[in-house]
Amino acid sequence: MSVTALKSALGHLEIDENPVSVRAKSRDFFWYSPVLKARMDHLTADFVVAPKSEAEVIEVLRQAHAHGVPVTVRGAGTGNYGQAMPMRGGIILHMKNMAAVKAIHPGRVVAEPGCLIKDLDAATRAHSGQELRMHPSTYSTATIGGFISGGSGGIGSCTWGVLRDLGNILRLRVVTAEAEPQVHEFTGEELHRVSHAYGTNGIITEVEMPLAPSYDWVDIFVTHPDFATSVRIAGDLGHQDGILKKLISVYEAPTAKAYFQRVAPHVAETDNLLGLMIAPQSMDGFLTFLARYPGASVIFRSDETEWPKEPGPVFEYGWNHTTLRALKVDPSITYLQVLYAPGVYEEKVAAIRAAFPGEVIQHLEAMRVDGKMAFAGLTLVKFTTEARLDEIIHQHEAMGCHVFNPHRYTLEEGGRQSTDATQLAFKRQADPKGILNPGKMIAWDAPDWDYTRMYTYQDMQAAE
Amino acid sequence: MSVTALKSALGHLEIDENPVSVRAKSRDFFWYSPVLKARMDHLTADFVVAPKSEAEVIEVLRQAHAHGVPVTVRGAGTGNYGQAMPMRGGIILHMKNMAAVKAIHPGRVVAEPGCLIKDLDAATRAHSGQELRMHPSTYSTATIGGFISGGSGGIGSCTWGVLRDLGNILRLRVVTAEAEPQVHEFTGEELHRVSHAYGTNGIITEVEMPLAPSYDWVDIFVTHPDFATSVRIAGDLGHQDGILKKLISVYEAPTAKAYFQRVAPHVAETDNLLGLMIAPQSMDGFLTFLARYPGASVIFRSDETEWPKEPGPVFEYGWNHTTLRALKVDPSITYLQVLYAPGVYEEKVAAIRAAFPGEVIQHLEAMRVDGKMAFAGLTLVKFTTEARLDEIIHQHEAMGCHVFNPHRYTLEEGGRQSTDATQLAFKRQADPKGILNPGKMIAWDAPDWDYTRMYTYQDMQAAE
Repeated sequence: MSVTALKSALGHLEIDENPVSVRAKSRDFFWYSPVLKARMDHLTADFVVAPKSEAEVIEVLRQAHAHGVPVTVRGAGTGNYGQAMPMRGGIILHMKNMAAVKAIHPGRVVAEPGCLIKDLDAATRAHSGQELRMHPSTYSTATIGGFISGGSGGIGSCTWGVLRDLGNILRLRVVTAEAEPQVHEFTGEELHRVSHAYGTNGIITEVEMPLAPSYDWVDIFVTHPDFATSVRIAGDLGHQDGILKKLISVYEAPTAKAYFQRVAPHVAETDNLLGLMIAPQSMDGFLTFLARYPGASVIFRSDETEWPKEPGPVFEYGWNHTTLRALKVDPSITYLQVLYAPGVYEEKVAAIRAAFPGEVIQHLEAMRVDGKMAFAGLTLVKFTTEARLDEIIHQHEAMGCHVFNPHRYTLEEGGRQSTDATQLAFKRQADPKGILNPGKMIAWDAPDWDYTRMYTYQDMQAAE
Repeated sequence: MSVTALKSALGHLEIDENPVSVRAKSRDFFWYSPVLKARMDHLTADFVVAPKSEAEVIEVLRQAHAHGVPVTVRGAGTGNYGQAMPMRGGIILHMKNMAAVKAIHPGRVVAEPGCLIKDLDAATRAHSGQELRMHPSTYSTATIGGFISGGSGGIGSCTWGVLRDLGNILRLRVVTAEAEPQVHEFTGEELHRVSHAYGTNGIITEVEMPLAPSYDWVDIFVTHPDFATSVRIAGDLGHQDGILKKLISVYEAPTAKAYFQRVAPHVAETDNLLGLMIAPQSMDGFLTFLARYPGASVIFRSDETEWPKEPGPVFEYGWNHTTLRALKVDPSITYLQVLYAPGVYEEKVAAIRAAFPGEVIQHLEAMRVDGKMAFAGLTLVKFTTEARLDEIIHQHEAMGCHVFNPHRYTLEEGGRQSTDATQLAFKRQADPKGILNPGKMIAWDAPDWDYTRMYTYQDMQAAE
């Protein structure tokens, strides 16, 4: 590999080689995890290139292939599984200059991958009162390409399911890292080749996404003294097909009091909290629904309530922002990503809650799974040691709750814990030298890996 | 009661007393049922009044109350439970002159009840690309007020559930039949007082309904040789949260060949048929989904297929239009309305299908019930005798499938088969003389009724 020769070959493109900013652009939110922080904090790329067009992406990949230099693509670097961390140096392919919204139609939008999600929504709202079906809690900073490559769902998933579900991504245009890079247009089953693949087998240069109507969503906080009832309310609300909702979050006490500083003055230590986004025309239906649950109390609704210190968007309390808020108050906090499946979520949440008193705090996000209500548990955990964290994860799995382990940087360990044959097959074709985000796909590096052990990338760049 | 005095008191309003047109305006689609046809065919009102404003509605009700004359309200008379049939003569309150669309906002519309559903959709589409969440198969002729008063769900229910679900009706303005008629605005739990009450306890003068985005829905016919697989495809499609759909109908063979004349040339006797409406941006996801089911074949899609004789809207094959098409070919056909509940619909449909070979043909419509996929069975039945029809219904119920009996003209027998306390309580207040659509609410006429017997209204107008 010759980084110097590559840099010279790409000299006419926008390149950043200032060590301080290169390091900043080599980082994502991996540090949410004490485990990843201990292993990845030293990683940095050799330089950053920010292509302005698909033609420039092709040029970068052609040259990187020729010189055998690793290429790690990034949007805004808001992932927290180390998705955009360059394991072996090389170049960061920064997509900030490819941020155009190219076409807006009823129900769909075509954009470049580096477009910020908030900018995409602003454009489709102004054009025709439409918005993306779902977005991460990092709405204001994340890019659409990064969300597709490194995310799975989020705000909106209580209605639409996750990105992987049919219809939630319409088309992806992808450039390969072959001697002569190829351009592919993927739809249907082919989308899974590159969605949520961390850029390990192709670089997305254009996305087509479905749009939903954009409403002036009402942000709501509800308290309830009983946690099990709070979970029931969340699930039942998810089952109300006539009530339009974009977010249903449940926070076990004392999350609201302890970690949500602007909410804290309005709640007691014992209050469980629901964070909700409801369409204005569904507010009457929602309040009718909520009145059926004694003890539930609306403490904030953005269309009526004024707090001396406004809480900001309710979605910035949900999904991974919950962990961020808790971390700011208590640096010992880390988290899990647990799937509580349809039909059994109430009993499973209760059982898990009982199993780790004082050590684990429940945080649930409603989502649709195969057309049924389920919950993602982005559980807060008081971190002590890696061994104890692994034990907690194993215990979850022993109790029948799948964990998408956020303390692992590989696709497989953070996901389904087995080879994704579709992604691997496409990597063989699209990245014959294995230069795309190396070290993130175990199936490529170590096909016979035993998933009970943690994977450690054999050629990870050494700490200085 | 003094019809003559009432007619005179209302002489300045739009009145129709021509016996031929009065009789025509006194009829709905009760004749779908051989049982109702035998009992209700002779019914006719004394005259018809068509108010032009809420003030005129109030005047009619004040005078009708004073003179003790029955008032049966109707929209377009497209119901098929005899909802709008005047059991005891009196006046038909025809809402055709109250058809204004009053206001359109993001996600909601305010209209008068006599507005045709197709006109309402045309207005909201032209205004802002919106449409009603659901409508009956009588889209082109039915009114929004009639749908709310006499219907329960239909095209759109596979996504939104039924009218009764929270959020699917926003507000109803209602005039009572008291000595001095009162005007009420109902929201939330109060909506159930008058929705699906056949106008027995108040007259709706304004409706506020939620709107969904209006897409250029693609009409689709799919065939499959196996019926159980067809049901599975329908249910699985309903569970695809990322694919926007407005209609999922399943027709057992030989319905398509025998009763759908314009479809018949394109199918075999043994083909089961699916009728679907899918949003254009979801077509790729839908076709990807369908390719997972060997044997499924798209024989028509409205955006691409040209048949020598166009089939017309696919929704005009579904819900109660299926029965209508079958009746036209074979006058001995009648039907049921069966609920196949979430989780068990596949096994229940199979069991019912096996129980009545050659006598019953399955026709299923996907709908959401409490947030879960279920099916309404608008089953075709080859009618022989009333006794046999009752036996078939009882056998359905013995096998755990609730029947909304479409061969009964009362609210209770056609619905939940028990008193609706909310509707009854409001009738006591709103209609103290019992002049509103008399004979349709058993709870009013005969509170201790035994629902194993058919109710026959004691004062039904005699046949001449």
